[in-house]
Amino acid sequence: MFMFTTNSQNVQSCIDACDHCHRMCLQSAMNHCLESGGEHVEPSHFRLMMNCAEICQTSVNFMLSNSKYHAQVCGICAEICDACAESCDRLDGMEDCAKACRECAKSCRSMSGSMS
Amino acid sequence: MFMFTTNSQNVQSCIDACDHCHRMCLQSAMNHCLESGGEHVEPSHFRLMMNCAEICQTSVNFMLSNSKYHAQVCGICAEICDACAESCDRLDGMEDCAKACRECAKSCRSMSGSMS
Amino acid sequence: MFMFTTNSQNVQSCIDACDHCHRMCLQSAMNHCLESGGEHVEPSHFRLMMNCAEICQTSVNFMLSNSKYHAQVCGICAEICDACAESCDRLDGMEDCAKACRECAKSCRSMSGSMS
Amino acid sequence: MFMFTTNSQNVQSCIDACDHCHRMCLQSAMNHCLESGGEHVEPSHFRLMMNCAEICQTSVNFMLSNSKYHAQVCGICAEICDACAESCDRLDGMEDCAKACRECAKSCRSMSGSMS
Repeated sequence: MFMFTTNSQNVQSCIDACDHCHRMCLQSAMNHCLESGGEHVEPSHFRLMMNCAEICQTSVNFMLSNSKYHAQVCGICAEICDACAESCDRLDGMEDCAKACRECAKSCRSMSGSMS
Repeated sequence: MFMFTTNSQNVQSCIDACDHCHRMCLQSAMNHCLESGGEHVEPSHFRLMMNCAEICQTSVNFMLSNSKYHAQVCGICAEICDACAESCDRLDGMEDCAKACRECAKSCRSMSGSMS
Repeated sequence: MFMFTTNSQNVQSCIDACDHCHRMCLQSAMNHCLESGGEHVEPSHFRLMMNCAEICQTSVNFMLSNSKYHAQVCGICAEICDACAESCDRLDGMEDCAKACRECAKSCRSMSGSMS
Repeated sequence: MFMFTTNSQNVQSCIDACDHCHRMCLQSAMNHCLESGGEHVEPSHFRLMMNCAEICQTSVNFMLSNSKYHAQVCGICAEICDACAESCDRLDGMEDCAKACRECAKSCRSMSGSMS
């Protein structure tokens, strides 16, 4: 009823993808990564995990609030998700997180209007 | 794998309930309430909507990070959700938001260990 | 000691500017705007206020965590702050908020490396 | 002008204390702790740092929005800040962070109305 009047389905699926990625990154970082130690808490990897969780949360909030700027936030989100997926690929037990990041990157890139 | 070792199912369902409530409150406030005006943007109602969205987000993040303090955050979340549901009951077009708040309050109250 | 090794002073002053803008926007929206009503709660203005508060918070968190992506987040933050300042210019009692937005935009634009 | 009508000075100083604690915890966790490794990234310490940063941010946002529930959020914040300060006491290079946590705990406890 008060939902988005255009691209409603795309926005809803991007909110879902960002929310899932936020959950996977935050939960993995604060549990699997901290408990595994070693490369899992290497600064550049761990920062990416936390940055990815945060920008996904921000993207969700911009889409929910029907912000004119959601496409730009989603554009950055896509880039961070891709970098996080690559970082996860190099570590044990991060397959599900990498997958969530890639799906979120794809959805956010589509939302941002840039198919690059 | 790196999931919660106890009460896993309850935590997961409380995360889902808080996430749904966060979405409903933020989306309703920033779309339906702002576009309706009048009582929908009355300060005490609108603040409750935004407070409810924020504490739900914080509760989700505490549960995802396996925080020792998630029960206490969920306890406050339950109280704010109940107040928000009551505020929604007095306004048009807020039935779905009120329902999400009540379900979240119930789930958070169970998580907080206080059945009051 | 564990601070940023380059541009430390610029980063610190941008964190301060974003933090001040976040405070002004959130406090003004949830108090002055809601209590004034009328044009102050018109959807496009109020959304800008909340979007501006949120992207400032995200920018702060990216700078504090020494994220590689802070420049890009600051770039969007600058754009939203400029739009919010213009929206504030049209309304009573928003001079301090407009000023905080313009100072934050300037600092974030410098941080983002784009002087446009 | 649109500021808090009661306890304005206390609220303002509690916002400052929470903001400073949020900065110290997030910056220390994502820089000093990750770069030091070892006990600095031990799960219970690192979670406390991130939980403390987040609840401080939420407390700030509740105070800025003049929420009826700010005292309760500040009450939890005080408890988490105390626990985080104790955890910092056991580690190298965390003196400033411990100090920020203790000052925030004191201010939040006063705000929450419980002097316990």
